[in-house]
Amino acid sequence: MTEPTKSPLAPDAFPDMPALAGMRLAVGEAGIKYQGRADVLLAAFDEGTQIAGVFTQSTMPGPCIPWCRDAIARTGGRVRGLVVKAGNANVFTAEHGVEACRAIAQTAADKFGCTTDEIMLSATGVIGELLPYEKVTDILPALEPVEDGWAGAAMAIMTTDTFPKGATATAMIGETKVTINGIAKGSGMIEPDMATMLAYIATDAALSHGVLDALLREAVQPSFNAITVDSDTSTSDTVLLIATGKAGNAEINGPEDARLENFRANLNALMVDLAQQIVRDGEGASKFIIVQVTGAETDDEAMIAAKSIANSPLVKTAIAGEDANWGRVVMAVGKAGVKGDQQNLQVTFGGQPVTEAGRVRDGYDEAMLDAHLKGHEIDLAIDLGVGDGAATVWTCDLTHGYITINADYRS
Amino acid sequence: MTEPTKSPLAPDAFPDMPALAGMRLAVGEAGIKYQGRADVLLAAFDEGTQIAGVFTQSTMPGPCIPWCRDAIARTGGRVRGLVVKAGNANVFTAEHGVEACRAIAQTAADKFGCTTDEIMLSATGVIGELLPYEKVTDILPALEPVEDGWAGAAMAIMTTDTFPKGATATAMIGETKVTINGIAKGSGMIEPDMATMLAYIATDAALSHGVLDALLREAVQPSFNAITVDSDTSTSDTVLLIATGKAGNAEINGPEDARLENFRANLNALMVDLAQQIVRDGEGASKFIIVQVTGAETDDEAMIAAKSIANSPLVKTAIAGEDANWGRVVMAVGKAGVKGDQQNLQVTFGGQPVTEAGRVRDGYDEAMLDAHLKGHEIDLAIDLGVGDGAATVWTCDLTHGYITINADYRS
Repeated sequence: MTEPTKSPLAPDAFPDMPALAGMRLAVGEAGIKYQGRADVLLAAFDEGTQIAGVFTQSTMPGPCIPWCRDAIARTGGRVRGLVVKAGNANVFTAEHGVEACRAIAQTAADKFGCTTDEIMLSATGVIGELLPYEKVTDILPALEPVEDGWAGAAMAIMTTDTFPKGATATAMIGETKVTINGIAKGSGMIEPDMATMLAYIATDAALSHGVLDALLREAVQPSFNAITVDSDTSTSDTVLLIATGKAGNAEINGPEDARLENFRANLNALMVDLAQQIVRDGEGASKFIIVQVTGAETDDEAMIAAKSIANSPLVKTAIAGEDANWGRVVMAVGKAGVKGDQQNLQVTFGGQPVTEAGRVRDGYDEAMLDAHLKGHEIDLAIDLGVGDGAATVWTCDLTHGYITINADYRS
Repeated sequence: MTEPTKSPLAPDAFPDMPALAGMRLAVGEAGIKYQGRADVLLAAFDEGTQIAGVFTQSTMPGPCIPWCRDAIARTGGRVRGLVVKAGNANVFTAEHGVEACRAIAQTAADKFGCTTDEIMLSATGVIGELLPYEKVTDILPALEPVEDGWAGAAMAIMTTDTFPKGATATAMIGETKVTINGIAKGSGMIEPDMATMLAYIATDAALSHGVLDALLREAVQPSFNAITVDSDTSTSDTVLLIATGKAGNAEINGPEDARLENFRANLNALMVDLAQQIVRDGEGASKFIIVQVTGAETDDEAMIAAKSIANSPLVKTAIAGEDANWGRVVMAVGKAGVKGDQQNLQVTFGGQPVTEAGRVRDGYDEAMLDAHLKGHEIDLAIDLGVGDGAATVWTCDLTHGYITINADYRS
């Protein structure tokens, strides 16, 4: 198998991410599947660090998912460590997978002098293979987390990604400047394994579990829950939001505290950035597609219509072929089953309206859209003409690259 | 563009379909889009013929859909004619599309001496282009329907299909032998246009609209509603069931009449056959995949899980790559959101069990499945381990051929 080519949609460079007081990062080579590269990430958090998480809705999750969910529930959101393994998802591995979680968490807890409930776990890679967890527990004790390790961390959690994904922001909480750092992986596949979307976002702000939980659940909707590559939901999707509290901001009373306004805006923007980076590394992607639906009866219906368009193989292949086949967009709206007015439906490619009064616009000429379709970013806007509901979804096109990645090579 | 190669999954030959008393067929070349081939089908039915129909659930249907639905409602199920156009879907064409329906129906009604409500209409092809309906109305008057025209009819309704689709059966109603003939089109695409699933099934049995309607709604669930190629629902899907009454069977009292038992079984089998032929002509298909889900809480939940597997791009590409990547099947079950027991989940490829007690079976060796995966028919069985619900879905794999057909050529 050849090395993957970096996605044409990748950002120019990994951002310059500052150290974040109260946490340290280390990576190690366990050799779970990949050789000659880091495949384990270990993060250490100071006492007092708070955490919230959102996890896959899959009914067949790997054991890391209930591990994290239950641990956060038991501690009320305290965390001291995180261990992420790349190359094996530790999914559908029955009791062996639970043992693997216990052993890895125990090793990390011994190292940090905490309980296993204060250790978060993730794994990403092939489904159904037993995780050789001794390879992980063997190397954890010797790892030495440092403050300045974000780029290495982003690389250690990659599986079939073609570039590491990170974002950083500063925000004000009252008079206090705080930092937010995030890394993510997902959606690049160079061998036919299951993609997993993982993201870890940390801040030095002092925020309680309850506040973090509310902020995360709010921010995940228009970011990670608004992307799709191929409609397949992983068994291991995990987004964690961590606050070390070292920035020394005043205590926040709850998620509606007015002093969170700037932090909330920056957190939301950072999560959208990371989510978009995942789409930009979608398997075989050659176009980054923005699907904006307006005029729906509700925001939920707008999201259903946007996802229907973004997941339509016929829409995605048309865009891959640089073909303004807007009839397929109408088809995808129709199959979504949400309320829409055919007479008032507006379909726009790159700002160019193509429909009018229930039919193609007079004087419409597909050639006008050619320049837009040849670009790397495709803007698709649909107004359903029945209300004020709106939603935006980001996706990528469906190309020969996707088939090559997922069908041409044996696992 | 090169001529499409016949699907490797096609049946050996078009069946020998007998004439059906009380109806006649003609085809003509209107030159709507295709040149040098028939692209219009005209069917004539004797007085007394009854009809029932099921139509796309799309909220953006073409005008033929409400035309048929409303006409059947107004006449209570009387029909005298059917006109099908191939090459233009007459969808999203506003008032022009309605005018096209009116003009074509009027021409056929004048020819047959009936009302326009007794004329059924279908169209299949590109969405959004205005239908040059004079090309159809110009040729209709000279067409001369004959009893023996089924193979030609099946070819005239093809768009991007690679083979014509037909099936025939005989059944007993009481002491009377009746014939059932059906033709269908769909799912082959050699240019990036919208696929449409159309099927027309006729019998010489004497059955009322009410009986036909009940039989059709029952039979469409495990046949046409149990197939998927790429999860995209057409704006024009139509299945019509027509009974000329010429066989002279005794009057049937209703859909639960015991004398329908054999007819019902044969109708169901014929519709499954036609539906499977559509999958066998799926765009780029190289494998015919049978997804059987058992052990679900309800039949509906089994169908949701089966569709989730059958529509998963990762499952479909794995099978295209002849890769028994069963972890992707677990993923697709998990994302379906239906009740399932991970500990009791059974995944079987070609009769070979691969899972046991929530993990891979001891001694499982992917090589055992290689012969099955290299074949043209893939049997995938999943038991969810929680109940008695069951469903079967037929689909095809996702190959480079699908991308080539839908992305590489401009419309």
